[in-house]
Amino acid sequence: MKKNINQFPQNTLDEASCPVRKAMEIVGGKWRLFIIQQLGKKTLRYGDIKRAIPDISEKMLIQELKCLVEMDVIEKKSFGEIPPRVEYKLTDKGKLALPLLKHITKFGQKLQMYQ
Amino acid sequence: MKKNINQFPQNTLDEASCPVRKAMEIVGGKWRLFIIQQLGKKTLRYGDIKRAIPDISEKMLIQELKCLVEMDVIEKKSFGEIPPRVEYKLTDKGKLALPLLKHITKFGQKLQMYQ
Repeated sequence: MKKNINQFPQNTLDEASCPVRKAMEIVGGKWRLFIIQQLGKKTLRYGDIKRAIPDISEKMLIQELKCLVEMDVIEKKSFGEIPPRVEYKLTDKGKLALPLLKHITKFGQKLQMYQ
Repeated sequence: MKKNINQFPQNTLDEASCPVRKAMEIVGGKWRLFIIQQLGKKTLRYGDIKRAIPDISEKMLIQELKCLVEMDVIEKKSFGEIPPRVEYKLTDKGKLALPLLKHITKFGQKLQMYQ
C-alpha cells in the first residue's frame, strides 16, 4: 500500500531525516534516558549503572547499553584486568541529550501539578 | 528482592513521583509524541490523525489515543451525527508538552549533524 504522505505536506514522520524520529531513537525509551541521566554525572562501571537503575532487568540493560554504543551515544571501555573492568561514558553526541533531559524533567514537574 | 535505592540517594527512578518517569509516560513512545504533534496544530478527526501518521497501525493508534485520553492529555468528543464524527484535541495538560516537542526537535536536528 502506497503511503499517503502528500495530504499533509508539513508532516515529515515518514522521512528518515525527521528530527523528532531521530531524537526518539535515543530518548524515546525510558531506560535509555535513565542510562544517559546516570552517565551524565560521571563515567560508570556496568555494576554502578545496574545499581543506579535497580528496576531494569539484566537482559534489558545489556541490550540498551549495546544499542547506545552502536548509536555512538555512549562509549564502552574494557580494561584488561582481572577481575574484568568495563566502563561506560557519554560521547560528545550523547552529551547533546543532557540539556534535553533537563527540559524533560521540567515538563515532568509541571505534569505533577496536575495530580 | 529488596531494591537498593540507598546507594544512590540522588536517584529517584524508583519513586512514582520521579518527574522524568512522569514525562516519559506521555512523550516516551514515538507514537504518543507524534499524535501530540499533530493535535498541537489543531483539533482533528480520527481519520485526519490516521492520515497524518500513515505508518501507525489502526490497532496501535486506537490504543494510544485511548491511553492519552485516560491520562487527560487529549480530549475526545463524539458528535451524535450520522456518519459518526469523533474529534480529538489537546487538553491544557497536553498543551504542556508542546514546548518540550520543540526541544526534542532541536535535539534531533543537532543529532543529524553527526550523520
